[in-house]
Amino acid sequence: MISKFYKDMTGKESVIRQFFDYSRQRAAELGPDSVYNFSIGNPSVPAPDEFGKAIIDLVENGDPVSLHGYSPTLGLNSTKQAIADSLNKRFGMNYEAQHIFPTSGAAGALAHALRCVAGEGEVVITFAPYFPEYIPYVTGTGAELRVVPADITSFQINFEKFEEAMSKDVAAVLINSPNNPSGVVYTTETIQRLADILRKKEAEYGHEIFLITDEPYREIVFSGVDSPFVSKFYDNSICCYSYSKSISVPGERIGYMAVNPKAKDAEFLVPMAGQVSRFTGHNCPTALMQLAIEKVVDMTSDLSIYEKNAELLYNALTEIGYKCVKPLGTFYMFPQSPIPDANEFCWKAAKELGLIIVPGDSFECPGHFRISYCVPTELIEKAIPLFKAAYEMYQ
Amino acid sequence: MISKFYKDMTGKESVIRQFFDYSRQRAAELGPDSVYNFSIGNPSVPAPDEFGKAIIDLVENGDPVSLHGYSPTLGLNSTKQAIADSLNKRFGMNYEAQHIFPTSGAAGALAHALRCVAGEGEVVITFAPYFPEYIPYVTGTGAELRVVPADITSFQINFEKFEEAMSKDVAAVLINSPNNPSGVVYTTETIQRLADILRKKEAEYGHEIFLITDEPYREIVFSGVDSPFVSKFYDNSICCYSYSKSISVPGERIGYMAVNPKAKDAEFLVPMAGQVSRFTGHNCPTALMQLAIEKVVDMTSDLSIYEKNAELLYNALTEIGYKCVKPLGTFYMFPQSPIPDANEFCWKAAKELGLIIVPGDSFECPGHFRISYCVPTELIEKAIPLFKAAYEMYQ
Repeated sequence: MISKFYKDMTGKESVIRQFFDYSRQRAAELGPDSVYNFSIGNPSVPAPDEFGKAIIDLVENGDPVSLHGYSPTLGLNSTKQAIADSLNKRFGMNYEAQHIFPTSGAAGALAHALRCVAGEGEVVITFAPYFPEYIPYVTGTGAELRVVPADITSFQINFEKFEEAMSKDVAAVLINSPNNPSGVVYTTETIQRLADILRKKEAEYGHEIFLITDEPYREIVFSGVDSPFVSKFYDNSICCYSYSKSISVPGERIGYMAVNPKAKDAEFLVPMAGQVSRFTGHNCPTALMQLAIEKVVDMTSDLSIYEKNAELLYNALTEIGYKCVKPLGTFYMFPQSPIPDANEFCWKAAKELGLIIVPGDSFECPGHFRISYCVPTELIEKAIPLFKAAYEMYQ
Repeated sequence: MISKFYKDMTGKESVIRQFFDYSRQRAAELGPDSVYNFSIGNPSVPAPDEFGKAIIDLVENGDPVSLHGYSPTLGLNSTKQAIADSLNKRFGMNYEAQHIFPTSGAAGALAHALRCVAGEGEVVITFAPYFPEYIPYVTGTGAELRVVPADITSFQINFEKFEEAMSKDVAAVLINSPNNPSGVVYTTETIQRLADILRKKEAEYGHEIFLITDEPYREIVFSGVDSPFVSKFYDNSICCYSYSKSISVPGERIGYMAVNPKAKDAEFLVPMAGQVSRFTGHNCPTALMQLAIEKVVDMTSDLSIYEKNAELLYNALTEIGYKCVKPLGTFYMFPQSPIPDANEFCWKAAKELGLIIVPGDSFECPGHFRISYCVPTELIEKAIPLFKAAYEMYQ
């Protein structure tokens, strides 16, 4: 029968979506100049030229029957090998093609990785603030999502609360660094400590605990910031990646799951993901995108604008008086709201000033708001007086 | 923990896959000319030139940020409208853009449609012979797949067995016409009778029963054959389509789910599919493929070779002595095995003659074998003496 579960979900739009929709409505009513939209994480810089050139070259010179033909269930071997080679070269890993499973972006990678290592009656732990779609990704496996409260002084891990949250039924821990929404990058110390605790708990519980790393912002790290490759620190790990942000192709749904070659059952996890696909109807990403990515595997878009925007905005906000943990990567920052109710603050900023920012409640971190600064720098310059006005509404 | 369910599934390759793998192994050992591979359904004719041209045009002339940007969750409106217009024009339907949900091929469409209308404790009925992937598509929803035995005289529906199979917990019926593996097309009479029974049972059970139609072969119907558009006959229906076969792009994972505008809750079903996506990590098909399809929505590849091959092979086989229901579309036919054990027959044909065909057991229709004749016509001409030799092994 028509699923009550999914039907009840329709029409209940996420808060982020409500703000985004309000921005469109306001632009329609008052004109586009009345809106300063910092609500969504759509890359604002183009893909490297080589990406478009690779597509054109494939279509112009490939045999159409084989070019557009079925990809093998576990992905095109040449693409898998290119991804493995790139990771090995950059991070000193030992991936082979068999450890790489191309997916429809990080969403596909996470949905597959989580189903491989967690299910009914088990728990997946994540850390606030976190991307709200982790809820369906995790509950879709049958497992329960358990959230460790944020350390709002640094947005590193709140280890005390983490240890309290651990229990024998924890099958996996899901992290996101560089982080949406905080913009923070986990330090080597954070990752080392997390790995040590997980190894200790694996021994105590007598079963593996997988570390699933959501890394779509891996390439967006600012100058001088060290961004350790998490899988180097912990064997039972699966890295979930998307090219959406690094080469600005979020609509093309291309990413991968990379199984740590040292993980328990490493040789089974990609074939298992292939089995998961049969149940979800996911199949591979498109053959064309797999082949195009292979040609640009070591490239990124010109990501420098995000750092420039971060610096400009962070300096302005802290000068105004906002408290904010300094972003070290991504294109987000996550300041404290001038009043405890960030939801009220964000709606007031939207309606009175046209400043579209989203409350931290969606990320299970109330009292904060997220700014997505993947926008032209001029928009930030124009918006700074509005951030000031928003702050002053409550002084 | 590492999923026992998915792990146990790895390494147990489907019988079709085993035959395909044997064909590759034999080709490697004895040379490609020693293999006559009729095991898989990969289109053998190229996509229309306009498809490649559309891709090149989009990449050359589009703004890369918006071209490769996120598609809306429920698909690009222009693509949805183009698909609706095409269906309305061809089949006299009244689809609006809101009834169309672009998906990653028919697999994605079926996985979404089934989750919208069936779940735990419910039953989905299908008819042998059927595509083996229906098992994970259906069980992935939590529902049970119940199979009605084949009517081997015509491969239309065995209505007596169908009525016996009906029960109050049946949430949906899943059909595939033109059919893989039989090559048969359901007649108007078959569809009308099916629809009448479903309406009667809806009234009797007091709940809707959805008809899910798997239609990737809709465009491959031979001269003079009437192929009715199933959704015209039954309101509570969802049409699941893929461009894989009609324009020969199975690797590009593009298709759609079209909700009958007259269905119960028609306005909810596409938004519900959008919610399903969040749990499976499917998201939309790629933006580029949605936009490219929009340009070729009424085209097909030159599909005439399939009919030519069908006629040549069907005439030859029946002359040899095989019993076979005449294929009316697709690129499959499904003759009776000369011995009851089609598995034995197919392995013997493979190993002694290099003739790669697959046993009907996989399609829950033993005693038959499937021939995929999406191959060059010369391969069929060369293989006819082998089909004769295979037949004569058992006379």
